[in-house]
Amino acid sequence: MSDALRQTDKTTISRHSERATYDREVACAILDEGLVAHVGVSTPNGVIVIPMTYARLDDELVIHGAVASRWLNNIDDSLPISICVTLLDGLVLARSAFSHSMNYRSVVAYGTARLLKDKAEKQAAFKALVDHMLPGRWTDCKQPDDKEIAATTVLAMKLDEASVKIRSGPPKDAEKDMDQPYWAGVIPLGIAVGTPQVDPAYDGDAGVPEYASNYSRG
Amino acid sequence: MSDALRQTDKTTISRHSERATYDREVACAILDEGLVAHVGVSTPNGVIVIPMTYARLDDELVIHGAVASRWLNNIDDSLPISICVTLLDGLVLARSAFSHSMNYRSVVAYGTARLLKDKAEKQAAFKALVDHMLPGRWTDCKQPDDKEIAATTVLAMKLDEASVKIRSGPPKDAEKDMDQPYWAGVIPLGIAVGTPQVDPAYDGDAGVPEYASNYSRG
Repeated sequence: MSDALRQTDKTTISRHSERATYDREVACAILDEGLVAHVGVSTPNGVIVIPMTYARLDDELVIHGAVASRWLNNIDDSLPISICVTLLDGLVLARSAFSHSMNYRSVVAYGTARLLKDKAEKQAAFKALVDHMLPGRWTDCKQPDDKEIAATTVLAMKLDEASVKIRSGPPKDAEKDMDQPYWAGVIPLGIAVGTPQVDPAYDGDAGVPEYASNYSRG
Repeated sequence: MSDALRQTDKTTISRHSERATYDREVACAILDEGLVAHVGVSTPNGVIVIPMTYARLDDELVIHGAVASRWLNNIDDSLPISICVTLLDGLVLARSAFSHSMNYRSVVAYGTARLLKDKAEKQAAFKALVDHMLPGRWTDCKQPDDKEIAATTVLAMKLDEASVKIRSGPPKDAEKDMDQPYWAGVIPLGIAVGTPQVDPAYDGDAGVPEYASNYSRG
């Protein structure tokens, strides 16, 4: 697998190209940290964008849904999709409204969806999906049985034609605005994790597992 | 403006329809809380999904970018787009891997982009964009001048054909899995706000404004 993502007409970033990178390792770190992907697909009725859970499995991204899902149920092996994962790191308050921005790290990837048919391959994807969300959980929950595997559509897309865009650091006002009197700086943002809430219907005697009580992201 | 979003073939939610709503007020609350929209557009090269800041201005969503931006620069008034805003509220740990989920609130909206040409209308959009990100900031920063207004493309899309999907509450395992021994519950997630960091280049004497030091979201 190449160290670089494939730079094409579509992935070449024209605006703020100083924020762009095509480094696979950087992309993988962002993808491994994110929790929600936004998946775009063209339909006869126009483009749709749907939030989905996802995971990276080596050099592929996997997404899944119910077999009965409307937009998944006409999949063949050549559905072109776009997958975007965005991590929001902060609000950037410049002196000028014009230079306001956000600090973020995002990956936009393009490809065609491959439908997983092999049972073992689907199980590997489920493991990746659960452990992506919550490392350690896969071996501490009931794993999918044949019926559940059959009821789930899993798609994989090669991480190949993709780009990364990152903005970080303080505001960058134009020189002419540097003497404006307004406070300038960054408000950092991240993921807040609350105290795990046990299912009211849970009547077992296991305490909150460590991977849940110590959960953090980013 | 109707109290209900327009339910069409495209916005009718087929999976987990109990999670769907078409209530405009619920949609607006989600849109007003979110910070990043994922915007999908069909191009001759296929679908692309891009993270963007946005704001709601009455019954329209506004997005913006540099006039020089590649995907914005061929806009006419009939570009079909899809805008998705997702708020992540928690990880749902069920007894079975199959029933793992996330708690979330999302809006998916469809429409055609309208290019704003009127200067006053563009200024109103800039105000909405800045105050959406950080209420109170617009009157405490340098407002856009004619050159900056001309350099910015602003698109508006009517909030009309759209749907809301919400999952909340504890896991919902199948009856057959309720006696599985694994801990089940929810890890709540939200937005963590850090301490504002002043721009190292700032040499004014204004302290951190209250709207920044007291910032919270959700």
